[in-house]
Amino acid sequence: MTEQAAAIQGDDALTEADRQGLYRVLLSRRDVRGQFMPDPVPDDVLARILTAAHYAPSVGFMQPWNFILVRSPEVRGRVKAAFQQANDEAAAMFDGERQAVYRSLKLEGIMDAPLNICVTCDRDRVGPVVLGRTHIPTMDLYSTVCAVENLWLAARAEGLGLGWVSIISEPALKEILGLPERVVPVAYLCLGKVSHFYAKPELAAKGWRRRLDLTDLVCLDGWDGPKDGALARELARAQDAAEDGTLI
Amino acid sequence: MTEQAAAIQGDDALTEADRQGLYRVLLSRRDVRGQFMPDPVPDDVLARILTAAHYAPSVGFMQPWNFILVRSPEVRGRVKAAFQQANDEAAAMFDGERQAVYRSLKLEGIMDAPLNICVTCDRDRVGPVVLGRTHIPTMDLYSTVCAVENLWLAARAEGLGLGWVSIISEPALKEILGLPERVVPVAYLCLGKVSHFYAKPELAAKGWRRRLDLTDLVCLDGWDGPKDGALARELARAQDAAEDGTLI
Repeated sequence: MTEQAAAIQGDDALTEADRQGLYRVLLSRRDVRGQFMPDPVPDDVLARILTAAHYAPSVGFMQPWNFILVRSPEVRGRVKAAFQQANDEAAAMFDGERQAVYRSLKLEGIMDAPLNICVTCDRDRVGPVVLGRTHIPTMDLYSTVCAVENLWLAARAEGLGLGWVSIISEPALKEILGLPERVVPVAYLCLGKVSHFYAKPELAAKGWRRRLDLTDLVCLDGWDGPKDGALARELARAQDAAEDGTLI
Repeated sequence: MTEQAAAIQGDDALTEADRQGLYRVLLSRRDVRGQFMPDPVPDDVLARILTAAHYAPSVGFMQPWNFILVRSPEVRGRVKAAFQQANDEAAAMFDGERQAVYRSLKLEGIMDAPLNICVTCDRDRVGPVVLGRTHIPTMDLYSTVCAVENLWLAARAEGLGLGWVSIISEPALKEILGLPERVVPVAYLCLGKVSHFYAKPELAAKGWRRRLDLTDLVCLDGWDGPKDGALARELARAQDAAEDGTLI
């Protein structure tokens, strides 16, 4: 092992301010669809955000991602059309009042945001055998999602809003962006300055679905395993704090 | 819309210290396999980390995740055995010198870490039709991965190491943990205090694979699209900064 390889992070790698900063960014992150402003994203800010994505974990250090920055109005128009077709199909799957609510929701900012980013996964980046992907073949897709979440958090830390457009056909997106067969478009994102961020997730604020109690989602040693009472009290306390936008 | 629903985050929701904290945590996060200490994870710390996961984005606000905390030595022993079988199969897929290097790597901390966590995805949590999952059926799995990445970052912010064990058969893991058919074990994690963190990713430090140049991974408007020269310079600058552990 080289001297560089042996190097470890110093004890002062992180501070209490960093810890609080991480939680504050996590809790204020939103899926943004409707509050985009036209201001362009400065190159230095975009570079930091994409670097945050690139420093995500990846299976076998595979780094399977690419970032296609979609600025062209023509390309975005085709993506918007693909969204609209998928969204009409999606709306028809909901019944009655639920469909009315669905149709009232704004679910993308493709043309409004100053920038769209498609984050892709090249499943053949390092050949067919990947350390850590031998038994769970979706691990490279999961790695790419970690990059998306890093990107999302960095955007929020920079004061930018981001929305993930998932109501779209993958084959349509692949055709529009000219992706090779082996490349999966994992996430199509809208990024930009926003007029404001919601205090709560938009789907919760608009009554679509409520936040679950974390205590109901944690158990011990197996799917039907017991609860830990002392931990459950801490979970409830932490969730209360998170609802106030803070986790100390 | 209720008054609460209309509420927006204040202008002071995030500070410059928060922005820097997010990047510092992102860049110091590591996939830990070999440096675990036996100290238990305190309940209040664990509650914050799980809350960070629970505040991840999810398609249609579905929150499909559960967190199974695996403390039982007996259950962990069965998981370790399933890892060992998969790892022997995996090693055989690599040739010659690469296989020797593979066999020299420590790839899990199942018994060493004080706590294991299986993060699962309940694909039927809200019924068959999910807002945003109508056209990309894997969106709920992707949401669960976002929760994993949040959990990972929060752990690092709390000074804890985390490793993702992906060399294991999903059916074996489902059987050991008693997961219903509809529930996918997305990530099996080892969490705990560590003696130290590597300064660079372990697989890079040990010569398995190097970090790619971000400039090679970013292009405009399509897979074979052009580069933006000014942005490329900023990307190279940001990656240089990240290699030094900072992004200002």
